[in-house]
Amino acid sequence: MTAQITIFDTSLRDGEQAPGFSMNEAGKLKMAAALAALNVDVIEAGFAAASPGDARAIARIAAEIEGPRICSLARASSTDIDAAAEALKAAPKKRIHVFLGTSPVHREFKLKMTPAQILTAIADMVAHARSHCEDVEFSAEDAIRTEPGFLVEALSTAAAAGATTLNVPDTVGYATPEEMFELFRMLTKKVSRSNDVIFSAHCHDDLGLAVANSLAAIRGGARQVECTVNGIGERAGNAALEDIVMAIRTRRDATGVTTAIDTTQIMNASRTLSRITSMHPPRNKAIVGANAFAHEAGIHQHGMLMNRETYEIMKPEDVGWPASSLVLGKHSGRHALAARAAELGFALDDDAFAAAFAEFKRVADEIGTVDTARMAAIFSRAQGAADDEMWTLSRVEIRAPLASDAHPVARVELHHPRRGRVTDIAAAPGAMDAAFLAVSHILDVDASVESIDMRYVAAEAGETGGKVQIADVLIEMSVSSSGESFTGRARNRDILPACVSAYIDALCNASAVTRHRARRGPINLAASGVAAE
Amino acid sequence: MTAQITIFDTSLRDGEQAPGFSMNEAGKLKMAAALAALNVDVIEAGFAAASPGDARAIARIAAEIEGPRICSLARASSTDIDAAAEALKAAPKKRIHVFLGTSPVHREFKLKMTPAQILTAIADMVAHARSHCEDVEFSAEDAIRTEPGFLVEALSTAAAAGATTLNVPDTVGYATPEEMFELFRMLTKKVSRSNDVIFSAHCHDDLGLAVANSLAAIRGGARQVECTVNGIGERAGNAALEDIVMAIRTRRDATGVTTAIDTTQIMNASRTLSRITSMHPPRNKAIVGANAFAHEAGIHQHGMLMNRETYEIMKPEDVGWPASSLVLGKHSGRHALAARAAELGFALDDDAFAAAFAEFKRVADEIGTVDTARMAAIFSRAQGAADDEMWTLSRVEIRAPLASDAHPVARVELHHPRRGRVTDIAAAPGAMDAAFLAVSHILDVDASVESIDMRYVAAEAGETGGKVQIADVLIEMSVSSSGESFTGRARNRDILPACVSAYIDALCNASAVTRHRARRGPINLAASGVAAE
Repeated sequence: MTAQITIFDTSLRDGEQAPGFSMNEAGKLKMAAALAALNVDVIEAGFAAASPGDARAIARIAAEIEGPRICSLARASSTDIDAAAEALKAAPKKRIHVFLGTSPVHREFKLKMTPAQILTAIADMVAHARSHCEDVEFSAEDAIRTEPGFLVEALSTAAAAGATTLNVPDTVGYATPEEMFELFRMLTKKVSRSNDVIFSAHCHDDLGLAVANSLAAIRGGARQVECTVNGIGERAGNAALEDIVMAIRTRRDATGVTTAIDTTQIMNASRTLSRITSMHPPRNKAIVGANAFAHEAGIHQHGMLMNRETYEIMKPEDVGWPASSLVLGKHSGRHALAARAAELGFALDDDAFAAAFAEFKRVADEIGTVDTARMAAIFSRAQGAADDEMWTLSRVEIRAPLASDAHPVARVELHHPRRGRVTDIAAAPGAMDAAFLAVSHILDVDASVESIDMRYVAAEAGETGGKVQIADVLIEMSVSSSGESFTGRARNRDILPACVSAYIDALCNASAVTRHRARRGPINLAASGVAAE
Repeated sequence: MTAQITIFDTSLRDGEQAPGFSMNEAGKLKMAAALAALNVDVIEAGFAAASPGDARAIARIAAEIEGPRICSLARASSTDIDAAAEALKAAPKKRIHVFLGTSPVHREFKLKMTPAQILTAIADMVAHARSHCEDVEFSAEDAIRTEPGFLVEALSTAAAAGATTLNVPDTVGYATPEEMFELFRMLTKKVSRSNDVIFSAHCHDDLGLAVANSLAAIRGGARQVECTVNGIGERAGNAALEDIVMAIRTRRDATGVTTAIDTTQIMNASRTLSRITSMHPPRNKAIVGANAFAHEAGIHQHGMLMNRETYEIMKPEDVGWPASSLVLGKHSGRHALAARAAELGFALDDDAFAAAFAEFKRVADEIGTVDTARMAAIFSRAQGAADDEMWTLSRVEIRAPLASDAHPVARVELHHPRRGRVTDIAAAPGAMDAAFLAVSHILDVDASVESIDMRYVAAEAGETGGKVQIADVLIEMSVSSSGESFTGRARNRDILPACVSAYIDALCNASAVTRHRARRGPINLAASGVAAE
């Protein structure tokens, strides 16, 4: 029988504890719901004794989230354990997670306890936790730097006192995969009652080895891994849940184990976390990064068009990516563009294709990459001047309110090749919202902005030779009538026109797709015959 | 003798090829200079045949960058190889990197060549490259999915034709560390002339295993690894240079090899790349992420204060971090705050400490984390009302220019507890710059903004119960007189006041530190007795 690995998610504890990743109670509840949808086995919801806020969040998750076992961390002290038990009261399935440092440096400098005192504390506190709850995990903090003999003693003591899971954390992210494998092989042999407990690995990514170390622990006999969505956590973070789960799944031939995770919920969990913390994984993050399933290079795209397997080991839909995206960019060639046109239902003659290719190259040079909606807009325009719906921003002005409780007013003037200059004025609680509203009036598309990413980038100033800061804005918005998402991008010396131009760009992309669809039938933005990875 | 691993950086080729990471010629030159400072052995500067722009950038790097060997990629075609040779002409040390797919799926679907044709092409094209250049690398694309016997034949053919480096790419990021180790052990035994060549690994991070796979290849006999700064590259990126180099260095006991990298240049290379591409590694990126050497959690900080080794395996200064940062945040306790006060030279009585702790908790709740400069400002204020230099923004207005070539004008009104309301007006090419200039006039500190990161984050609207978008702005700026950097952060319903408030916040931090220093002597923001990791 294939062993199933217990996925213990600690995004809400080790993850939340890292600088910049704090979450409030509402955020924690949303994230817990996403973890339940992902079908993780255990949610470590917090550290009840750390603060009243932490305890409250655990209690609400325990009461409201169905499915996974809910866990609270606790130091090896009865007040911590009692606080954990109290917070977990409402959970149908609960776990108390007791930890104590076992390495020499932790014993001597942090805890100031002798080895014998450590063992007594483990026995007493695990037993105390068991008096509250049948499922108790014990962690030997800094296990990797603990003398192997003492580690066996400590874990055997915990097992004898009733711990059901024994966790072996690489607290400082120091281990190599070979060491992890050997350590777990040794522990699963030498710890007494090892058949009655589950061994668990908890790896940090300080040397970029957390995922490999988790898999090595599994090879050595671990049957639980502790991990976080997007690999968040103290310092360089914990092992990323999505990497571990997809490595196990994709390489079942090599790992020989499974998980209960619903992988199609991975992107939802990743995005939920990003929204709550305002911290987004980088484009090049495995599985959940924007580029994880994207191919730009002409050579790779040509290969993909010949046979999907050429560059593919996972399918984007397996992890819940809403759209496959053979991203087109400055490295893409005519092959890729022709395939995309066919896939989107555009039949272009040679002149129209040449025009589309030229505009595509110009846009790609300017903004880097060209997504499906924008590509559809380019093809649509290439088919005829009548399709040209490119609005550009001529001017935007904000008038500050005279009374302090009045809303700012924005006046925008747009230009259109056929309709000329059109002006609109709107008021809203924020100046930016007012400007967006005025643009929406003119283009007659109602949309709501989902996110704005803005960065200042340095550029050479043409005339003076000095450096100037250019605002580079990427907007994601959804059209109110259909709920479909589109992106827009623009750069400007000034933030306000950069944001407004990016919004216009997104609306123009949306309109081009809508009009093409009205004439030709559906464009499926979410899937394509070419599907990339 | 300890073997030295050749570090082959492909940030400018595989990295640059990924969607969103395009670089222009000036950017590539800057990055190449940073790589030379890092002392990488080989810089893959581009793919000469891909575009005239690529060829030009390679030629300039070849002519201008001293130290590393400069390399261009080339398909196995004489025109590609000739283009590479031409671009590399000026380099004192050069390499041509020829690649050809060897796996069944590449041979059959992409190349449509028989195995015999593949071998002939390898022999001919490697020999052709050698006619230009003594240092030739051959890559068997998709080596991991190539039949082992045919891979040995292909690599032996390349070696016989004069290739000096044989690269074995895991093109689809599919391998496990055990497979990499076994593969390299087999190849270094079976490839003919294997003693005359260097075996190289090129790993992708699709399953989060790129660093572990690179180290496994080294254990198996590889003596070159191909990698990128910040781990950029196609899809989930290449193995991160900084992770590999620091894993080798930190775990020399386990890896038994060295590199020639000047690790103190790692942060410079990482930041240079981030600035050029406007793509920043996440806080939880190993080595170069903002959190990589930061401890927030109270328990960890308490441990750190007892003994640095408790949670430490690397020193931030080893990789060129400009400041150690025991980041204080909502999880930090009194221990950490007292240590930070002592370290910054503040002697606070109990009341002042209580006041500082209360303000710290309030600020931490609001903005998440509190850096050293801001902490100094808090301590400074806690010492007495006379230190209170907190300016706040009352109002900011932008007037659009009447003539299209005139600069926007900003009017800002600030408030100060002692000085009351103060107003200033300034004009600049961008509205934001004008507002910053007006603030600088009022606070009498000249500073230049280095970066602004702005995100819209969703927040619950108090009255209506609906959701509103809040601009969350983080500004990094340097004071013109000293060159020291400070950060400021603010949130507001509207972008413009959020940016201006963040700028004020940064200037207030700078002033507090300057005034404290004037009275007490130097505060060392760059190092502390507590130094964290």
